[in-house]
Amino acid sequence: MFRLFTEPQNISAGTVRLSADDSEHIRSLRLRPDEMFIICDGNGMDYICILGRRNHFSVAEIKEKRRSTGEPAVKCRVFIAYSKGDRLDFAVQKSVELGAFEIILFESERCIAVPHDIPKKITRLQRIALETAKQCNRGIIPSVSSCGKLDDVINEVSTNSGLSLFFYEDEEKVHLKSVLEQYDTGVVSIITGPEGGFETHEAELARTENIHIVSLGPRILRSETAPVVALAAIMYHTGNF
Amino acid sequence: MFRLFTEPQNISAGTVRLSADDSEHIRSLRLRPDEMFIICDGNGMDYICILGRRNHFSVAEIKEKRRSTGEPAVKCRVFIAYSKGDRLDFAVQKSVELGAFEIILFESERCIAVPHDIPKKITRLQRIALETAKQCNRGIIPSVSSCGKLDDVINEVSTNSGLSLFFYEDEEKVHLKSVLEQYDTGVVSIITGPEGGFETHEAELARTENIHIVSLGPRILRSETAPVVALAAIMYHTGNF
Repeated sequence: MFRLFTEPQNISAGTVRLSADDSEHIRSLRLRPDEMFIICDGNGMDYICILGRRNHFSVAEIKEKRRSTGEPAVKCRVFIAYSKGDRLDFAVQKSVELGAFEIILFESERCIAVPHDIPKKITRLQRIALETAKQCNRGIIPSVSSCGKLDDVINEVSTNSGLSLFFYEDEEKVHLKSVLEQYDTGVVSIITGPEGGFETHEAELARTENIHIVSLGPRILRSETAPVVALAAIMYHTGNF
Repeated sequence: MFRLFTEPQNISAGTVRLSADDSEHIRSLRLRPDEMFIICDGNGMDYICILGRRNHFSVAEIKEKRRSTGEPAVKCRVFIAYSKGDRLDFAVQKSVELGAFEIILFESERCIAVPHDIPKKITRLQRIALETAKQCNRGIIPSVSSCGKLDDVINEVSTNSGLSLFFYEDEEKVHLKSVLEQYDTGVVSIITGPEGGFETHEAELARTENIHIVSLGPRILRSETAPVVALAAIMYHTGNF
């Protein structure tokens, strides 16, 4: 079924007010009068709708309300270092497909491609997150934001509850599986580096803040692959796919 | 360390003969005389080398021979339906990063983008597999090939030993984890569909041939994401990352 997101305030008893954009989009789909589509409130609730009998491109009629099925039980916060080209587009798209709760970009020492205009980049990536969330059946639109430098990330995750994982190419002993088997996985933060990986002192800083330094195995994963693989493993481990 | 692949016949006692291309590439790297690099025979053996003292751009001197560390114990054959744009490029690159043993493309009913010139497409994808294998520390170059239609894939996997998994969007009950926990995972074949997914009768055909029909969860994965996520889960499950 076609899926769109709306602000909760557009939903009232029995109907949903459609934005001009959504109205335009629905018009282009040429739905039959009784054809159902889903309007999600972005808070994990789906409203199964048909077009309203009156004002049918600006109001939808709710037939059923139910919890979105696409949200995993584990809440994954994905911290991704800036990298070049379309790697971030890719990482954001796949993270949303895999059920990330939120995506936060940051700068680390070996970053070679920090955008000049970060707000513009975030807007673009948030748009990708929205489009992906629609396509892949999410019940929320994962937020995309920026949080400064790696120090800020480390501060942020070390003061929050939940399991924090720092993926480091030179870590050979600690494997993701052993960490996931030992700790509670209700909330998991994952931190992955740029093209050139992390500096040793960056990993050491994370370690002193009780963040787990973890290997992703003997094959060197590209910067855009690492968060996706980590998420896939966490979702698999926690029974969320 | 810089890594390249060579044919086994180029390796003799103590030295490796470099091809013109590799020689050119090494020249561009401006290695120091004692700087080591890896030449892999594509059969899982790495030769740690330095440039030869004589003819140093055409011959490398072997300092050490050791088993490649990048090969997983599980042998994954990845069958991917043709899909459009750069989706196959992506699926091949990520499959190689994740440790696929071989990648086989096929046509199924809802494929909207079967290439006109399949050999040309395969050559291009094989090149991507080679470049990725160098970057990500593989001990083999996974082969990329084409095997006709889904019927041929089903014939192929059902006559071979090992576990065969058919990922189907409409399967809701059978999860990957339950299958991987029940069966031997030494050799695993995974089959994933095109943009529009598989037809019901295609899944039924696979089922009659004792191929496991498996869900990849409640979120709808894009055609290029599904094989990558399946591989990540299999590698995680089998302790191969």
